[in-house]
Amino acid sequence: MIDQVHSQLKKIFNGRFSTSESTRANYARGEDTYDPVLSQAVVFPETNEEVSQILKICNENKIPVVPFGTGTSLEGNAVGNSNGITISLEKMNKILSVNAEDFDCRVQANVTRKQLNEHLREDGVFFPIDPGADAALGGMASTSASGTMAVKYGTMRTVISGLTVVLPNGEIIKTGSRTKKTSAGYNLTNLFIGSEGTLGIITEVQVRLSPIPESIMSAVCYFPDLDSAVKTAQEVIQFGVPIARIEMLNKDQMEISIKYSKLDNVKASPTLFFEFHGSETTNNEAINIVEELSKNNNGSDFQWASSTEEQKKLWKARHDVYYSVKALGNNMKVYSTDVCVPISKLVECISWAEKEVNRLGLTAPMVGHVGDGNFHSIILYDPHDKEKQKKIRQYSDDLINKALELEGTITGEHGIGLQKKHYLLKEHMDNIPVMKAIKRSIDCNNIMNPGKVFDLN
Amino acid sequence: MIDQVHSQLKKIFNGRFSTSESTRANYARGEDTYDPVLSQAVVFPETNEEVSQILKICNENKIPVVPFGTGTSLEGNAVGNSNGITISLEKMNKILSVNAEDFDCRVQANVTRKQLNEHLREDGVFFPIDPGADAALGGMASTSASGTMAVKYGTMRTVISGLTVVLPNGEIIKTGSRTKKTSAGYNLTNLFIGSEGTLGIITEVQVRLSPIPESIMSAVCYFPDLDSAVKTAQEVIQFGVPIARIEMLNKDQMEISIKYSKLDNVKASPTLFFEFHGSETTNNEAINIVEELSKNNNGSDFQWASSTEEQKKLWKARHDVYYSVKALGNNMKVYSTDVCVPISKLVECISWAEKEVNRLGLTAPMVGHVGDGNFHSIILYDPHDKEKQKKIRQYSDDLINKALELEGTITGEHGIGLQKKHYLLKEHMDNIPVMKAIKRSIDCNNIMNPGKVFDLN
Repeated sequence: MIDQVHSQLKKIFNGRFSTSESTRANYARGEDTYDPVLSQAVVFPETNEEVSQILKICNENKIPVVPFGTGTSLEGNAVGNSNGITISLEKMNKILSVNAEDFDCRVQANVTRKQLNEHLREDGVFFPIDPGADAALGGMASTSASGTMAVKYGTMRTVISGLTVVLPNGEIIKTGSRTKKTSAGYNLTNLFIGSEGTLGIITEVQVRLSPIPESIMSAVCYFPDLDSAVKTAQEVIQFGVPIARIEMLNKDQMEISIKYSKLDNVKASPTLFFEFHGSETTNNEAINIVEELSKNNNGSDFQWASSTEEQKKLWKARHDVYYSVKALGNNMKVYSTDVCVPISKLVECISWAEKEVNRLGLTAPMVGHVGDGNFHSIILYDPHDKEKQKKIRQYSDDLINKALELEGTITGEHGIGLQKKHYLLKEHMDNIPVMKAIKRSIDCNNIMNPGKVFDLN
Repeated sequence: MIDQVHSQLKKIFNGRFSTSESTRANYARGEDTYDPVLSQAVVFPETNEEVSQILKICNENKIPVVPFGTGTSLEGNAVGNSNGITISLEKMNKILSVNAEDFDCRVQANVTRKQLNEHLREDGVFFPIDPGADAALGGMASTSASGTMAVKYGTMRTVISGLTVVLPNGEIIKTGSRTKKTSAGYNLTNLFIGSEGTLGIITEVQVRLSPIPESIMSAVCYFPDLDSAVKTAQEVIQFGVPIARIEMLNKDQMEISIKYSKLDNVKASPTLFFEFHGSETTNNEAINIVEELSKNNNGSDFQWASSTEEQKKLWKARHDVYYSVKALGNNMKVYSTDVCVPISKLVECISWAEKEVNRLGLTAPMVGHVGDGNFHSIILYDPHDKEKQKKIRQYSDDLINKALELEGTITGEHGIGLQKKHYLLKEHMDNIPVMKAIKRSIDCNNIMNPGKVFDLN
């Protein structure tokens, strides 16, 4: 059966269809901890219609497909399928339209966030969702991603106003609306967001943009301990201060970042990075409150990034955290946890996590989108050290349980993939039958990224 | 079959189960233009478990059910079913929990927006979604409602973080999370929001609250014509001015409101109402820009509401618009259109609409949440005047077509109900098979509010 599919696809895609081992190996996993799984072939469509052709053929022949974007997912979301075909969307990277006056644009799935912002630079608008990696908007939609600016600008769930999706049967549908609001029927846009390629392939994404703020100001503040830092972030949010981002790095992570990013003017203590987007007046007002709150919690050296370049360097260091930890050891792997809790529970959760990391002797520096209650332990480990891996698994399990106990979620922004399927059962056991019913109703042959998010049987 | 269902329900609910004609007539429609349709009975559950019992019995016996909240829906969403049972949620009106420090709360479905805000008054937080009527949060979730403050605070789609839903088979599920973000599986919360009771019954709603702003300032400005008013609103949004609401009333509506609400200090011209929520400094800054933009478009008498009482009176007049039009004639009916377009197309769409209203000689004053591109023609008509009704239908059809031509949506906030099923086919023809597949997978006996949103067969 698969031979027939190969020959059909080869005929249509020619050089854009590959069964070579090296190509298949390049698309065998994301930035996750899984061993590569080579699909039978990789195909590179350029249009919605080509994606439709592929899915029609695969659906008729019940061949699994794995959608693949920039390969920056962290939970095994894009690991290959040894009986299936991987669809790389890398040739679908065109910006289709920009409407600066309506603050929206429409792009093909593999346009990356940096590519889009580069393009928008002259228009006075920007795309505000920034996961660490330079991910593509299609993949970011699929995993319901966010980043450091969710405090002010929301997440992919809130900025996407419409999608083009190719369904497993090859139908091409356009969901949503260019309007700011709509009550027209079921919200399919938000059903496909976060479905990780298990219901169809997102080929176009329409997003709301934000006006570039008149003034952007950054500040850094150091704290004697992690609790004081997190408590400050919590208070800033509870005070309702208009702020664009509040990022926390713990002492371990600061040491690593200082070394990796060659930062010469920051201290290796628990740190909060703040950023304010507004008019100069409103920013100054907000900063004064934040400085006051920081000082009340023993924050010291509250300081401004005095130039745009300095600001950029700081935030680059923040975005490079994942890679800074990875660079610590040759042949080491990195796994990032991703729990998120209500802001009132954040001090308790992070404090618990840091103690556990120390108790278990893990190398696992911490960073947090603390304005949203979301933080990551970035765990470095040797894939051959089975003892250590057991400990990591124990830590990860316990952290998830702790977060759930605190009314949190098992994943703030990385999704489920392969890694968190059993945790999803813990968080949403009662939702799973509905998710499965929807999956079966849209993908009756279970060809779409099977085995991800949940096991169908 | 229905007799057996009746006796089962009577046994469980006793006095909270009624087949009397007067009770059935009270729950036979919302504030829509439909003739009342009396269900076979009305039942008044008090708990999730009781709703579950009802649905289990109805599902086993394939008896249709119609969920009923405050009955303020406008498109026939809650019209009864002559073969079915109406479930009134009015006894489910408890506020279950408020977490002011996390800015969220959880309520039973029939808690109304005013009831909730009354309760929250001491907590420094408020619930920002305000449709004209004092609707209940369950119904507002079902129709994906919004109101005058969506510019700053979003819609039900964006403020709801979780739901309790009773499925047609009686299963009770809890969707979402108390965290600010989550990527844990399919976004069922946003699937049920806007599904108008066709997939299950929303019995609890968890919403994000907003901090009460330090300062609230209102302003009113009059314009020589509608275009200048709408253009100003458009420019305020495009300029990125931080504003909480911008409401437009056209000349006709101003005349009606002045009379109905006994306003003595406003003019009968096209008018914009502005409201600013922030610190005093930020509000003053925003107001200066808005005043400047208004003047550039020939706005005059830019004036402050000088007291809270005056502010309240103005906004009450705005919220009472529907009733002010209804009060114009005895035995007259009112139908409100609800298109929404991208902000750049708003001048064209509203201008077209006002001309059409005049050309057809309709009584149809206009109000708009112009900051969101959403506006309503509130059409007064005599239900016995068939000629006029044809004209109204023509106007409504043409307005929908105009909005779609301008990349708009057929409904910004009222939903589909019975009224807009054929329009939904126009806007989302390609989405309908997916909506139907989902409906069938969750409600295989089609008992949930059948015939609303779309016809299944």
